[in-house]
Amino acid sequence: MLTPSLTAPPSSSSAALLPFSHSPSIRTPTFALLSTLSTPRKPQFRLRASMIEKEVPAAERPATFLRGIDEGPSNSPDSVRGRFERMIREAQDSVCAAIEAADGGARFKEDVWSRPGGGGGISRVLQDGAVWEKAGVNVSVVYGVMPPEAYRAANPSQNGNVKPGPVPFFAAGISSVLHPKNPFAPTLHFNYRYFETDAPKDAPGAPRQWWFGGGTDLTPAYIFEEDVKHFHQVQKNTCDKFNSDFYPRFKKWCDDYFYIKHRGERRGLGGIFFDDLNSYDQDMLLSFATECANSVIPAYLPIIEKRKDTPFTDKHKAWQQLRRGRYVEFNLVYDRGTTFGLKTGGRIESILVSLPLTARWEYDHQPEEGSEEWKLLDACINPKEWL
Amino acid sequence: MLTPSLTAPPSSSSAALLPFSHSPSIRTPTFALLSTLSTPRKPQFRLRASMIEKEVPAAERPATFLRGIDEGPSNSPDSVRGRFERMIREAQDSVCAAIEAADGGARFKEDVWSRPGGGGGISRVLQDGAVWEKAGVNVSVVYGVMPPEAYRAANPSQNGNVKPGPVPFFAAGISSVLHPKNPFAPTLHFNYRYFETDAPKDAPGAPRQWWFGGGTDLTPAYIFEEDVKHFHQVQKNTCDKFNSDFYPRFKKWCDDYFYIKHRGERRGLGGIFFDDLNSYDQDMLLSFATECANSVIPAYLPIIEKRKDTPFTDKHKAWQQLRRGRYVEFNLVYDRGTTFGLKTGGRIESILVSLPLTARWEYDHQPEEGSEEWKLLDACINPKEWL
Repeated sequence: MLTPSLTAPPSSSSAALLPFSHSPSIRTPTFALLSTLSTPRKPQFRLRASMIEKEVPAAERPATFLRGIDEGPSNSPDSVRGRFERMIREAQDSVCAAIEAADGGARFKEDVWSRPGGGGGISRVLQDGAVWEKAGVNVSVVYGVMPPEAYRAANPSQNGNVKPGPVPFFAAGISSVLHPKNPFAPTLHFNYRYFETDAPKDAPGAPRQWWFGGGTDLTPAYIFEEDVKHFHQVQKNTCDKFNSDFYPRFKKWCDDYFYIKHRGERRGLGGIFFDDLNSYDQDMLLSFATECANSVIPAYLPIIEKRKDTPFTDKHKAWQQLRRGRYVEFNLVYDRGTTFGLKTGGRIESILVSLPLTARWEYDHQPEEGSEEWKLLDACINPKEWL
Repeated sequence: MLTPSLTAPPSSSSAALLPFSHSPSIRTPTFALLSTLSTPRKPQFRLRASMIEKEVPAAERPATFLRGIDEGPSNSPDSVRGRFERMIREAQDSVCAAIEAADGGARFKEDVWSRPGGGGGISRVLQDGAVWEKAGVNVSVVYGVMPPEAYRAANPSQNGNVKPGPVPFFAAGISSVLHPKNPFAPTLHFNYRYFETDAPKDAPGAPRQWWFGGGTDLTPAYIFEEDVKHFHQVQKNTCDKFNSDFYPRFKKWCDDYFYIKHRGERRGLGGIFFDDLNSYDQDMLLSFATECANSVIPAYLPIIEKRKDTPFTDKHKAWQQLRRGRYVEFNLVYDRGTTFGLKTGGRIESILVSLPLTARWEYDHQPEEGSEEWKLLDACINPKEWL
């Protein structure tokens, strides 16, 4: 009776997308574009799905997703693009290797895709391991075109009477969410990305725009202060190597960003987060992003080793599942990269790999005052200084 | 170490809201307001949270949530407002009684709230029953104020040079989502609502606007054709009593509305859905909404009785949980009432009672072609004519 007309699996027919959780200059399709015209400091704009080529599965990983150097020196292996791509691919390899070793059995499944005109991505997912129930580590490289308004907004000094054409852009990033099974072992998310525009064709010599974004944050269901302090201390140490303002500034930015407004709660206990960062030396910021990515394993794995085998009850598991529900709420309702990706037809499976394997919603659940669950909720409502 | 500063539980401090899933004239805060100015047929507008008073818990159910008749004849017990409120409260009672009887043990927990200036609501939730893992049946009555632009959009014949003031509105509705435990027993959602504006104070005698909206739809994890046919036949029988165009029109509207765009799938197997309905006799539409609400139990319970004890495996349960994940995606990303409510500070627990108790997301899950899971997915991708 039923027509077997499901000729293409639902996920493979979708257009391409940046598979990371929050892209520096990508906003959900609201008033963002208009608002940038009056607030030129922040180059916000919308992208349309048609502005990025459709991806195709690839049999194996290419040496690089960059276009050839004949497309311009910004595609050379020594360019910031080239160095950033190498960094995120090395970080993907080292994080996946460390996670596999700590899990002690399960392996990452890899999906590679590319785009005919350049760019592509590698998704790696480990599911139902001994330690992690779902762990995703994705890298992607995207060539696209942004509307001219966005470029003008980013260049307020340009003559307003000259109508510029569309501006090609380049974006690359690594994004990862690691959801463990044990309710005392925290979820980790990290994401580092680099964005660059080409000089517009009708304004030769106009300055190229670039910026960095990213962060690493921890989402436990139960608070072990020594764990949270260790995690934040590693973030601070990394930041302090570059600028003593970074940790306090990016710690607050993280608390502000991962805010579930309708709950009045943060998703977790924070870490660092930054966006649209370009007011420092470019090489310094590349080194900073590299150091941040390299800090993920030392910040996270010692906590996992301590908590992965902690005995727990059904009550602990149910609370973890309720917090996973909050994770879903944040990612589907607020996260910029996710909401943008869903609305523009990106690679759904790469976008939604950030969702936990399972989640739970109970009506009007209120932890008992003073309980361990209550302490976690309190810290999500009232962010703490951990150091 | 942790400051116990969680003085108010996160859900009780939020502002009030219409706790139903899709409100006729409520759009998420995007370009909706602007777009109505050029498309006067559909009275779409945005509400700001501040336009609805904050709710307070009430010790018991009042006889009516309507303001007194001294506020105008439209608040009289015989008005459409009064008759609609009685209808949804009777429907809430009869649906809850039937669900409790069929569940055979669990009882609904009731929360009543009201607003000082009139309006309020009754939330009823049954959790962890023998048959249903989560069942919510809510009614609400809201007095608010809409921006004048929306009223003008709904009254294109008005003189554009007269600047009208804010327009008070009245909205009442019943909303319900019933999630059973057994993976062969389907989820049911229904929602019926009535909306009315007062005549604007600066345009005495201007016509009052009113419209009806609602629908009933079925979301199984597995297809039993006889069940889906029975469900749709009851919807068609109800529609046919009023207008032979209703079923085909509202069946398609339902398939179009419950569309998870990023998946290319409907949430389930549809039913009926209509919105902004005012181009028929008002009494007829009130009778139609009443008949629709009264059809919920005969459409749904026979299916539950047949499927609630069907033996199942872990594989069946996992597939049900994956489909519950889709339910979450639709409700958090697309459902108008939910997204509006979350963004404007409504009563979160009433809004999110529609979410399942538990849900699941697996990376790149693809049902085997021709399997029962594949048949369900196919019917969600390619809506069928069931009758």
